[in-house]
Amino acid sequence: MRNWHGAGIWYGADYNPEQWPEETWAEDIALMRRAQVTLVSVGIFSWALLEPEPGRFDFGWLDRVLDLLHEGGIGVDLATATASPPPWLAHRHPETLPRRADGTVLWPGGRQAYCPSSPTYRDRSLALVEAVAGRYAGHPAVVLWHVSNELGCHNAHCYCDVSAEAFRRWLRDRYGDLATLNAAWGTAFWSQRYHDWAEINPPRTAPTFANPTQQLDFLRFSSDEQRAQLRAERELLTRIAPQPVTTNFMIGGFKHLDYHSWAPDVDVVANDHYLTAADPAPQLGLALAADHSRGVAGGDPWLLMEHSTSAVNWQPRNLAKAPGQLRRNSLAHVARGADGVLFFQWRASRAGAEKFHSALVPHAGPETKVFREVCRLGADLRAIAEVRGSRVESDVAILFDYEAWWGAELDSHPTVDVTYTDRLAALHGALWRAGVTADVVHPAADLSGYRLVLAPTLYLVRDAHAAALRRFVEAGGTALVTYFSGIVDENDHIRLGGYPGAFRDLLGVRTEEFFPLRAGERVHLDDGATADVWTEWLHAEQAEVLASYADGPLPGVPALTRRPAGAGAAWYLATRLDEAGTDRLVARLLAEAGVRPPVAAPTGVEVVRRRDGDRSWLFAINHTDRDARLPVRGTELLGGGRCDGELVVPAGEVAVVREEAARTGPSTYRDGPSAAD
Amino acid sequence: MRNWHGAGIWYGADYNPEQWPEETWAEDIALMRRAQVTLVSVGIFSWALLEPEPGRFDFGWLDRVLDLLHEGGIGVDLATATASPPPWLAHRHPETLPRRADGTVLWPGGRQAYCPSSPTYRDRSLALVEAVAGRYAGHPAVVLWHVSNELGCHNAHCYCDVSAEAFRRWLRDRYGDLATLNAAWGTAFWSQRYHDWAEINPPRTAPTFANPTQQLDFLRFSSDEQRAQLRAERELLTRIAPQPVTTNFMIGGFKHLDYHSWAPDVDVVANDHYLTAADPAPQLGLALAADHSRGVAGGDPWLLMEHSTSAVNWQPRNLAKAPGQLRRNSLAHVARGADGVLFFQWRASRAGAEKFHSALVPHAGPETKVFREVCRLGADLRAIAEVRGSRVESDVAILFDYEAWWGAELDSHPTVDVTYTDRLAALHGALWRAGVTADVVHPAADLSGYRLVLAPTLYLVRDAHAAALRRFVEAGGTALVTYFSGIVDENDHIRLGGYPGAFRDLLGVRTEEFFPLRAGERVHLDDGATADVWTEWLHAEQAEVLASYADGPLPGVPALTRRPAGAGAAWYLATRLDEAGTDRLVARLLAEAGVRPPVAAPTGVEVVRRRDGDRSWLFAINHTDRDARLPVRGTELLGGGRCDGELVVPAGEVAVVREEAARTGPSTYRDGPSAAD
Amino acid sequence: MRNWHGAGIWYGADYNPEQWPEETWAEDIALMRRAQVTLVSVGIFSWALLEPEPGRFDFGWLDRVLDLLHEGGIGVDLATATASPPPWLAHRHPETLPRRADGTVLWPGGRQAYCPSSPTYRDRSLALVEAVAGRYAGHPAVVLWHVSNELGCHNAHCYCDVSAEAFRRWLRDRYGDLATLNAAWGTAFWSQRYHDWAEINPPRTAPTFANPTQQLDFLRFSSDEQRAQLRAERELLTRIAPQPVTTNFMIGGFKHLDYHSWAPDVDVVANDHYLTAADPAPQLGLALAADHSRGVAGGDPWLLMEHSTSAVNWQPRNLAKAPGQLRRNSLAHVARGADGVLFFQWRASRAGAEKFHSALVPHAGPETKVFREVCRLGADLRAIAEVRGSRVESDVAILFDYEAWWGAELDSHPTVDVTYTDRLAALHGALWRAGVTADVVHPAADLSGYRLVLAPTLYLVRDAHAAALRRFVEAGGTALVTYFSGIVDENDHIRLGGYPGAFRDLLGVRTEEFFPLRAGERVHLDDGATADVWTEWLHAEQAEVLASYADGPLPGVPALTRRPAGAGAAWYLATRLDEAGTDRLVARLLAEAGVRPPVAAPTGVEVVRRRDGDRSWLFAINHTDRDARLPVRGTELLGGGRCDGELVVPAGEVAVVREEAARTGPSTYRDGPSAAD
Repeated sequence: MRNWHGAGIWYGADYNPEQWPEETWAEDIALMRRAQVTLVSVGIFSWALLEPEPGRFDFGWLDRVLDLLHEGGIGVDLATATASPPPWLAHRHPETLPRRADGTVLWPGGRQAYCPSSPTYRDRSLALVEAVAGRYAGHPAVVLWHVSNELGCHNAHCYCDVSAEAFRRWLRDRYGDLATLNAAWGTAFWSQRYHDWAEINPPRTAPTFANPTQQLDFLRFSSDEQRAQLRAERELLTRIAPQPVTTNFMIGGFKHLDYHSWAPDVDVVANDHYLTAADPAPQLGLALAADHSRGVAGGDPWLLMEHSTSAVNWQPRNLAKAPGQLRRNSLAHVARGADGVLFFQWRASRAGAEKFHSALVPHAGPETKVFREVCRLGADLRAIAEVRGSRVESDVAILFDYEAWWGAELDSHPTVDVTYTDRLAALHGALWRAGVTADVVHPAADLSGYRLVLAPTLYLVRDAHAAALRRFVEAGGTALVTYFSGIVDENDHIRLGGYPGAFRDLLGVRTEEFFPLRAGERVHLDDGATADVWTEWLHAEQAEVLASYADGPLPGVPALTRRPAGAGAAWYLATRLDEAGTDRLVARLLAEAGVRPPVAAPTGVEVVRRRDGDRSWLFAINHTDRDARLPVRGTELLGGGRCDGELVVPAGEVAVVREEAARTGPSTYRDGPSAAD
Repeated sequence: MRNWHGAGIWYGADYNPEQWPEETWAEDIALMRRAQVTLVSVGIFSWALLEPEPGRFDFGWLDRVLDLLHEGGIGVDLATATASPPPWLAHRHPETLPRRADGTVLWPGGRQAYCPSSPTYRDRSLALVEAVAGRYAGHPAVVLWHVSNELGCHNAHCYCDVSAEAFRRWLRDRYGDLATLNAAWGTAFWSQRYHDWAEINPPRTAPTFANPTQQLDFLRFSSDEQRAQLRAERELLTRIAPQPVTTNFMIGGFKHLDYHSWAPDVDVVANDHYLTAADPAPQLGLALAADHSRGVAGGDPWLLMEHSTSAVNWQPRNLAKAPGQLRRNSLAHVARGADGVLFFQWRASRAGAEKFHSALVPHAGPETKVFREVCRLGADLRAIAEVRGSRVESDVAILFDYEAWWGAELDSHPTVDVTYTDRLAALHGALWRAGVTADVVHPAADLSGYRLVLAPTLYLVRDAHAAALRRFVEAGGTALVTYFSGIVDENDHIRLGGYPGAFRDLLGVRTEEFFPLRAGERVHLDDGATADVWTEWLHAEQAEVLASYADGPLPGVPALTRRPAGAGAAWYLATRLDEAGTDRLVARLLAEAGVRPPVAAPTGVEVVRRRDGDRSWLFAINHTDRDARLPVRGTELLGGGRCDGELVVPAGEVAVVREEAARTGPSTYRDGPSAAD
Repeated sequence: MRNWHGAGIWYGADYNPEQWPEETWAEDIALMRRAQVTLVSVGIFSWALLEPEPGRFDFGWLDRVLDLLHEGGIGVDLATATASPPPWLAHRHPETLPRRADGTVLWPGGRQAYCPSSPTYRDRSLALVEAVAGRYAGHPAVVLWHVSNELGCHNAHCYCDVSAEAFRRWLRDRYGDLATLNAAWGTAFWSQRYHDWAEINPPRTAPTFANPTQQLDFLRFSSDEQRAQLRAERELLTRIAPQPVTTNFMIGGFKHLDYHSWAPDVDVVANDHYLTAADPAPQLGLALAADHSRGVAGGDPWLLMEHSTSAVNWQPRNLAKAPGQLRRNSLAHVARGADGVLFFQWRASRAGAEKFHSALVPHAGPETKVFREVCRLGADLRAIAEVRGSRVESDVAILFDYEAWWGAELDSHPTVDVTYTDRLAALHGALWRAGVTADVVHPAADLSGYRLVLAPTLYLVRDAHAAALRRFVEAGGTALVTYFSGIVDENDHIRLGGYPGAFRDLLGVRTEEFFPLRAGERVHLDDGATADVWTEWLHAEQAEVLASYADGPLPGVPALTRRPAGAGAAWYLATRLDEAGTDRLVARLLAEAGVRPPVAAPTGVEVVRRRDGDRSWLFAINHTDRDARLPVRGTELLGGGRCDGELVVPAGEVAVVREEAARTGPSTYRDGPSAAD
């Protein structure tokens, strides 16, 4: 891993000077300096300008841009410019166009109109990388390489004949022989047995539900094909240039790439995150994405490559950010481990599909709320430069596996109301409200440092991962597994003998039948909670029953169980609790596991601690409309100065405190009554 | 018709041993014997295993399975295995793949990925049938042949060039010359006149509404093409093997095949039926499907080829069956004429698209609610073996014509809210609540044995069928016709002069204009009923007005009329009554027709009588949560023993009584006040 | 412009005798005479009959029809019959079939299955026009030529390779060189720069949002391609035949053709209009379409080529017209400038996709409400023949630009809730309720005769058009601009410096950021109004603030402003007021501009004045269920006779008064208090 850190928290944006006359560039640099910008991503969609026809390169304008930026003291995250091929590629090589499952060709006019398995695209893109890297490897402005852009965002799945051939190669690598593939895919069902590799295709539109393992493997293959592009570009870059390499992930809402498997292929995990405007509390989704980015980065600091100063353009209703929201959002990412805060984009476009996307410099110019907040944030980041390199404290892990996501949402399942991220968000939200930070990690991660592990909807689970959770519990940990977990193995084959297959022994339960609920139907539990979507005919064979259904299709049947195992305990939740019930459950789990928040804070005041050895910093972000008082001692870095035991965070504001008495012990407790009880 | 009856009620399931290691098979046989299974369907999706490459057959495993079953005393419904071709067919003959109206190719990966008009598919499938039938014609386990599986379920309509050529051939057969076709299709409209047969295509995606008669004929053609496969397989089977032949229909919800026309092509009508989970009272849909299956079978016993022990996998929310519901469902089918009760499938799959479909042996094994209920049902069926061969008593017929369905739901109609099965289900439901059993029959059926005939939404009606209804009424019957009936002839040409064209004279009314209602709009009738969806500007020229609109767009206009005709009477209902209004109307019709239920029973207690000469059996299925008491005398066969005038059917339970004093007269009355009044 | 007027108001329908046996024709003529029909459109979909195979024509039947009509004294609007090609065209020239953006071919079976850029279609259609015009140019029945039919209704946009080639030609004409195109399309964004014209395609389905200027230009191109067919047919007709030429526009709901640009290509603007059945007050949409037709016609009389006597067939729920509604609808069109009232169609079809469309002669024949009302309308039109040629009085203009519509509804915009016609209809509706007639005109129209000009959602505006509005205001006019106006130039490039770009100076405001609202979210203004969908961070730099937000995301920010400019004033409305608020705003604007209705009338009584020099006629259409009394002096022409200062218009009825004291001054006032205040 090459070092990507600078002197502080990186600050900047995508910068697309090619969209503007050169006269604008000097003003850009001046405004960047005013905003204390330190890093801009350049050239991301410049292929058509850099290589106007095959093999003829034009670097003049880019030379001038990089020189200007360097003169301005601004670092450059230089793109390989392979994100979207020029129109000449599709025109000369129409077989590079991707196809949907129904055969529809996807044409140029937007972006990313290429088949990810196309050897022609691969060759042409690597030739470009070689040219760009060769020219700028030694440019003093360049501090980071930016491979492509949001790989797979629009072309994650291609069903064309080129992709079909690549899929067959990938399957041969995975299975070796057809008998193994036939067994894994369960082709004895519905007369699907393959006799020749050439008979296999991507799961193109079929008369009815396609083979689920074929679908699952196609999702794996598709993630791997995108990853192959990243690896090929990085290998070439690393050979030619000394700077570290990254690409921008889309952790948080994007389902199609297994970023946990991609982490080794970048020198720094970089992520793009945008609020969901329709969400009444989008800061929770932000926190989840950040915690997940950190989980992908193995707990190391990471880079927020893109977020927005205000509205985006691609949602149905693109809400602007309220005053202060930009600052809260950016600093929440830093609180959760980001050592860089970048935006899309520097200057709002005049033309094109993203012209209504907010920017650091709006259409209305710098005399705006947005640019004023941009300048304030630049100052903030400079003021907290010392947190760079520190890590986030967390005693809780939430298990996340893209394969489980893919599997859980295949078709012909018990109910469409069970989606993978639903309980993930619900449990993470309950932790957020409780003031507790969690890492979102892969089931293969080292769990030994945690006190509490949650496994929401872990439908597909490998034997080794189930065993790891068992070891965690037996070593003293507390675990919660929610319904529709442990159901299938890596081939999407049911684990027989009763649900939740892989976790049945650990949890001490056996479910004989799923009882999904009707749309909108609610049930009550005998502890007063309400639930919907899902119930099960469960036998608490080796477990204590904590709550049972009071009504619904299964009155008296257990809904929440707990089994002591080794030095720890394994909880099972067999229904979908509402928010209040989820909060109460999480409070019980935290109490049992001995986890508590960094400091006591009112709900809605987000508090996260970063630590570097003996030094620690407390981030407090007040999302409420009331001033908050927190029991903190130290120095507030954003202008507040010393605080002696009480930190006031005004409504909507943020504080970052270098804590005085660095806590040396764990942030948790084992004895004494739990405040959360 | 070859005889398909065994010693009692057939009991069993689809059995797919090829999905399991052979070690499992012995346990399967043992569990089948425990459950008293007598018949299993084998080999339905085995083509790819039986013929792994073209022309090379592998029957070894199937030999062993059949021998084991025979040793276990279990009969076999042996599939021709043509339901879904192996991947090699599409790979070697891509022109066999079906296409949607928009040209999308449907690929292998699911099932049934073949063009129903493909000569290649036909040839290869018949070669397989010949091989299978040749090998097993003499096997002692085989008692029935199962052609294909749910023909047309996913490939009912193919728009490819092969289908286009077949469609043209079919049209030449139907019309002889182009002038006749042009007249039938009304091609003077919109410049559609054909000058050459080669100009004609299936109704592929067009810029706007396609010619309705073209659409209608394509639906007829498509049903006939599927039927041709059945006929071809049956002809071959009958030549080679002595056993009777069937295939599983999908009567109840499947629109695309005209099963009334198919009945002569099977030795026994077999049907698949699954509950609609979103339906709060799915037992009504079950009863309707069963009554329709019986109607297709001409009143003879039929075979329930598939239903489910609990949840299915292909609905949005797949609800499990409550305890007892499996038994009620199965015995309701028997009550309504089924002499066999089979399920999909024996053992729940580990892999594949249907792995979450319930089975007789669940993933959790035999120590489950489901398997216990399966065993109980096996005993029940053995206990009532004597009903085999008897027929269901019914004085009411509901007319059903697939052509009317197809026509009624073509595009560019007065309102999308009129659907064909809406009033069918509403009227059948009102009869169900009234305790009265009805046959759902084709308009060409012999109506002379009925007292009451209902014609819901019979949009398309041939002259002969309208005349038959008139004869029925004039001979003393009572008939009800509902709105949007009699509108067009078999070419979908309007019957001019006023609606409801074909029935105008019989009903004595003339409608000059339809007045469909807005979405959600309700009107009131002057008899207190409420209605929605549809009203008409109707003149009761020769009819008595029973109710008129009190409000809505046509206040004072008649909504319900009655015309005495010959010895009977013809009623017309011109609006869509709500459930209470429909119940009241049906009560009046039953009273006028002199029809009453087998015995008086509380609503929700389903009572049906089967009869065989002097012997009769009363089935009573209690769908309520209260015990019911019925005035019955005879011997309860499911363990209840003798009952002397009062039969107690506990909540959720079923009783089958061999009646003591076999009723020799009709089950109806002519004089005395009607209990339903 | 050739003269198209007859002796009075034209009255008639589409007449498709080819769908009926010739025996019917004599009855048709007799019924037409009974109804006082004067003009019928013949031959619209007759191509397949007139030219059964390429180059062979059969005019016999049409000769006989025209002769019969002429004998009956009925004029003919003779179609060129090119509306829909015969099946042989697609069969022999499959490349003439249109394709959707996703590549789907649209096949014959409906109508208009041709690529609008197809040279083959062009050649064959012009050969037909030449044959038809050559044969009937001198026929005495023919008074008007009817080019094609609803050009572009179903094939407005074709994405096939033929269209692609035509699109490239069109772009070369527009831009001259690629550099100009690249600049206009903003291809520096997303690596879209074109290096070769051949690389350009229509905006076919792309992986994500396609280039907006490419989309916009494709919409322009598509309108021009359809227009080219009209121009080619008209040129040929004009060379061969002496009669005037028209085609039927679809002004009112059809987005895809820029009818303002088409007006010079017809001798008379003709329009088709159908009610939206789901609309509770469809007479408002009718009035808007009529006012827009008149605007397209430059204020001259126009022709209502199609409307319906009752229900149509192509909406989800096709409501019949209530008694009297047909008459109110037809006379409202005349009131608003129509000098002809025609219907689709004469006799309701027996077969085909439109058989459930109402007609002058229904399926039930002439003894019907519909035919009786048809006869009454014929008499009405004869009674008001004198209004022919007069013009409608209006002091208000609403600006409408198809390019603004196209631009405003491109994808990736701030919110999907802003649609182009939403505020158009809202403001027009408020005027309707206030009794004030408005012209809907292009921004390039001469505004000098108006007192009030409204510019709703004029997203895309050219510099010249913005300047014209400024001149209008400075000369003393009152103008209202609503949100999302003036945002972009003709290339869909943002006008920088703050919104609403083109109108910022005129309005004296600067918006720095849009704040769209959530779905269903409402805000309140400090004047008591409520609003939804849209708010803005607006600075009233040079304007008076009339109302501000009381809550929502921007409390205290201005929502309604007014800036005096020159002798007039410019108002800006930055949010979406509800109906009551819109009515109040419009009342204020009318008062300020000194505009009042022709006479005071209760809401729901539609009053419009037509004038011809000193003579004037007042149309009063009572849409309410109460009789209305209006202060009018003159002679009521529909049987009412003289009225001396009070005109009673019974509920649901219509009056047309030849006014006594022709008003010589303007219909507005400048002094005295405003009644609307």
